[in-house]
Amino acid sequence: MLLRMSTLLLKTLREEPADAEVPSHRLLVRAGFIRRAAPGGYTMLPLGKLVLDRITAVIQEEMFTAGGQEVAFPALLPREPYEVSNRWTEYGDLLLTLKDRRGADHLLAPTHEEMFTLLVQDMTGSYRDFPLLLFQFQTKFRDEARPRGGLLRGREFLMKDAYSFDLSEAGLTEVYGRMRASYQRIFTRIGLEHTIVSATSGAMGGSASEEFLAVAEVGEDTFVGCTACDHAANTEAVITSVPAAVTTTTPSMEVHDTPETPTIASLVELANEQRLGGRDDWSAADTLKNVVVTVHHPGRESELLAIGVPGDREVDMKRLEAALSPATATLFDDFGSHPDLVKGYLGPQGLKIRYLADPRVAPGTGWLTGANKPGRHATNVVAGRDFTPDGTIEAAEVRAGDPCAACGEGTLTMRRGIEIGHIFQLGRRYTDAFKVDVLGSDGKPVRPTMGSYGIGVSRAVAAIAEQHHDDRGLVWPASVAPADVHIVAAGKDGQVEAALQLGAALSRAGVRVLVDDRPNVSAGVKFTDAELIGIPRAVVVGRRLAEGWVEVRDRRSQERKDVPLVDVAGVITADVG
Amino acid sequence: MLLRMSTLLLKTLREEPADAEVPSHRLLVRAGFIRRAAPGGYTMLPLGKLVLDRITAVIQEEMFTAGGQEVAFPALLPREPYEVSNRWTEYGDLLLTLKDRRGADHLLAPTHEEMFTLLVQDMTGSYRDFPLLLFQFQTKFRDEARPRGGLLRGREFLMKDAYSFDLSEAGLTEVYGRMRASYQRIFTRIGLEHTIVSATSGAMGGSASEEFLAVAEVGEDTFVGCTACDHAANTEAVITSVPAAVTTTTPSMEVHDTPETPTIASLVELANEQRLGGRDDWSAADTLKNVVVTVHHPGRESELLAIGVPGDREVDMKRLEAALSPATATLFDDFGSHPDLVKGYLGPQGLKIRYLADPRVAPGTGWLTGANKPGRHATNVVAGRDFTPDGTIEAAEVRAGDPCAACGEGTLTMRRGIEIGHIFQLGRRYTDAFKVDVLGSDGKPVRPTMGSYGIGVSRAVAAIAEQHHDDRGLVWPASVAPADVHIVAAGKDGQVEAALQLGAALSRAGVRVLVDDRPNVSAGVKFTDAELIGIPRAVVVGRRLAEGWVEVRDRRSQERKDVPLVDVAGVITADVG
Repeated sequence: MLLRMSTLLLKTLREEPADAEVPSHRLLVRAGFIRRAAPGGYTMLPLGKLVLDRITAVIQEEMFTAGGQEVAFPALLPREPYEVSNRWTEYGDLLLTLKDRRGADHLLAPTHEEMFTLLVQDMTGSYRDFPLLLFQFQTKFRDEARPRGGLLRGREFLMKDAYSFDLSEAGLTEVYGRMRASYQRIFTRIGLEHTIVSATSGAMGGSASEEFLAVAEVGEDTFVGCTACDHAANTEAVITSVPAAVTTTTPSMEVHDTPETPTIASLVELANEQRLGGRDDWSAADTLKNVVVTVHHPGRESELLAIGVPGDREVDMKRLEAALSPATATLFDDFGSHPDLVKGYLGPQGLKIRYLADPRVAPGTGWLTGANKPGRHATNVVAGRDFTPDGTIEAAEVRAGDPCAACGEGTLTMRRGIEIGHIFQLGRRYTDAFKVDVLGSDGKPVRPTMGSYGIGVSRAVAAIAEQHHDDRGLVWPASVAPADVHIVAAGKDGQVEAALQLGAALSRAGVRVLVDDRPNVSAGVKFTDAELIGIPRAVVVGRRLAEGWVEVRDRRSQERKDVPLVDVAGVITADVG
Repeated sequence: MLLRMSTLLLKTLREEPADAEVPSHRLLVRAGFIRRAAPGGYTMLPLGKLVLDRITAVIQEEMFTAGGQEVAFPALLPREPYEVSNRWTEYGDLLLTLKDRRGADHLLAPTHEEMFTLLVQDMTGSYRDFPLLLFQFQTKFRDEARPRGGLLRGREFLMKDAYSFDLSEAGLTEVYGRMRASYQRIFTRIGLEHTIVSATSGAMGGSASEEFLAVAEVGEDTFVGCTACDHAANTEAVITSVPAAVTTTTPSMEVHDTPETPTIASLVELANEQRLGGRDDWSAADTLKNVVVTVHHPGRESELLAIGVPGDREVDMKRLEAALSPATATLFDDFGSHPDLVKGYLGPQGLKIRYLADPRVAPGTGWLTGANKPGRHATNVVAGRDFTPDGTIEAAEVRAGDPCAACGEGTLTMRRGIEIGHIFQLGRRYTDAFKVDVLGSDGKPVRPTMGSYGIGVSRAVAAIAEQHHDDRGLVWPASVAPADVHIVAAGKDGQVEAALQLGAALSRAGVRVLVDDRPNVSAGVKFTDAELIGIPRAVVVGRRLAEGWVEVRDRRSQERKDVPLVDVAGVITADVG
């Protein structure tokens, strides 16, 4: 491959694009890898397409190695299969739907569980046809409310999705482990520093769910580690350490006048001033905060739900929604229409709507909380005595320093990451929905169990850019760079011709070459562009060409060394090979 | 590559699929290459995906060789650019549209002229940035009224589209010629016998249009050749030989009672019986048939149009629509609402709707035609004297034996083909629409002119299957076959192990191998499946394995020869290499 910048569709930008909030987005646009074409839709430019194709090739190779078989489904699908699985409804606003000329409902598939399941139902009949591991690379469509970060979260993106079909739990466990190892190899090969964290499985259903997160400050996912054990989890999947059961000796509930204390801070201040319950050491953690949300069940009526969390914590809406999935939730604020819900003074005792409490609100624990009357709060409100929640919910924010529920010894640390892969044991949700049964080896019908394995391919381009850049530009890992070497012709005394000759020689040797042969562009601009584009190594054909020398530069280390022109092809070929 | 049929997602079918009308569709389904997933939407199964990928690789390689740069646009696009080009309206019912969660209109792109043009506008500024040749492989969506033939005409299909941008006509002509040669190489390499024919350019606009047709009886396109010259054209693009101008000496128009002659046949019979005009040699070719159609202009009101053609020819609706494009047409039959249009007795003289005539209805020619009164016809109705058409139109059917307008000597022959490629000089339709101007070398603005070059990639799979099959199944050209060799283990005395060993050895040598290692499947079924699947050569590891011999079979010629097992890897490798 030999690309010439004199003819390449490339325009590097000095200014930051106005709509780009994260480094990868800014740099991919500035360096000419992508261009916005639609809301949440990006065009891959020639350099971007090369990176995407290299990532795709690595994934495809590893999927074949893991025993995967490649298929390709349509993206435009009829409504019916998604009705059977109930996802036509459950997917909610994320689903892009349309009617065809006959008025028939269709969708642009956000994922293809239904189609994989139907295909396997159609193509198999007996235990001899299993196990199966099928995958595809496919453009997916989701009507994101807030597309962001360029390729990080778009409405249209390239995904590799894979599904395994096994007749035994042992088989599912085995292929799950195989795919987990395969994903580790894939992400390592494409240069992504990643962490595997426990996760929830969202609208897809299923259990035994792990996410591969590329560690990055701009990541939308927050995940925890532990100071003492190897526990790692997406915050949505964090299990709260449940305190030991408390045998209560708390005195009876007592109601106090607490005028103008609609917030936890104002309540704590007043409680200490007035020495409620004889104490002046009240803190937010002693209070019970009750938050009302509207839960939107897809296809059914919404309901009101109150969530109780210790007053020093917020309700984390992402954790809440993960707990309520496939329902979604919004904060309730129409208190005028519900006189029984006293804004700022809610307490769980005597609430008439469903009430779920944080696990810390364990039986026997006593709280300072609202008295359900304006300007009044109650002390000594004991869980299990004065109120009984309808259940617990993992919706309180997770904080660094929280105790680790996995080992019970360490505390949690927190980092952010970009979800680049998700594997989980999906089980029989879809084979049940479509009643997929095959003949077992014992002559009886058996229902396959599924695993689900996805990689965000276009998102991986952004994740790599996020992890591999500096203040000069992108710094591609060699395995996915759009070229192996960037030859810069710096000078007008035969440098362009020499650069092109060197490029041709390297290209013949199988090296991917980008030559900056632009006339009328200064050496300085060429160097700046080369650093912005971020190909791992550059060869500068410059002033010392006359003496037979060129310079080889390493993009990451910024190391430079002079090499005789006659040797440079050998040096680069050995390096790339 | 080593595929094992014992684990491959494959189920061959003995019965013809009920909905398959054409050989390629039947065979691709029966041999396990594709499966219907949606109306006009097919899933590529593992074998089909391999063929598709090989075709894609050939096209990509030739596009790079021709100087193309690869990009990838989103498929889901906002309405606005397609409003600017007027294609949001002009594309009509073929366009699949949807509203997002904010109510904004989007479309699934049927083609991407607008996006290529906007990208070039965005990324260029001066003559130095040209010429450009950009391409992409992309899933396209069109709401076909009648999807048919499996991959031949679907609602979702893979297309390679390319656009050139040049600042001069000479540049456009040059790249057009380069792409034409490139397409010839592509179709030759993938094994498609093809003809290049003159074509119309349809809803895309533009001129200098040629189609690549894969010759096939089931093709939707009919094209003509000439017995004397090398003229070849899609019937839509056939120009009718215009007769030399006639100096009329025809007597005055005369109206006759012709009761119950609403058809040409009944009219001719009566005319001869009654010796109208003193003649008894009337034929259909002497009559002028007038057909009324409703023309549907996208985004505007429909209008009635009468078409006059010699009575021995039908109006060809495809030719008519090509002539009216982007408008479409349907036969008018609501004569009750138009008393001035006398069904069965229409004549062009005194018609109150627009009237377009076949070029054969030249000035001076006289016709037997309707008198616009029930049961009456007129003789000696002379074009230019008794009526003047509003223009001519190429809408009459083309027939084998018609004179060739290109050379004036030969006559036309007719064949059918599948449109697999279309190249045309699009010109400035889109750069005008988006007002794309760049700085010319003389300092003045210059507007780029475009060429358009498309290949139906998934359709090519079907076209190849259409040209390469026999009564036993598919017969893939070596260049696109899913595997190079199909090793059949026929026997239970070590044949499976030997077949797998041979397969592994060949795979290591770079040969694409499919091994039929299925247990509990008879040799007969394996042979039948091998012929159905159609890999160019098979190696049968059978009874003579014990003596050290295997059999090599050629799928196309059915030739068989015995080869020592120790030599077969060498034979196959040399053959494939």
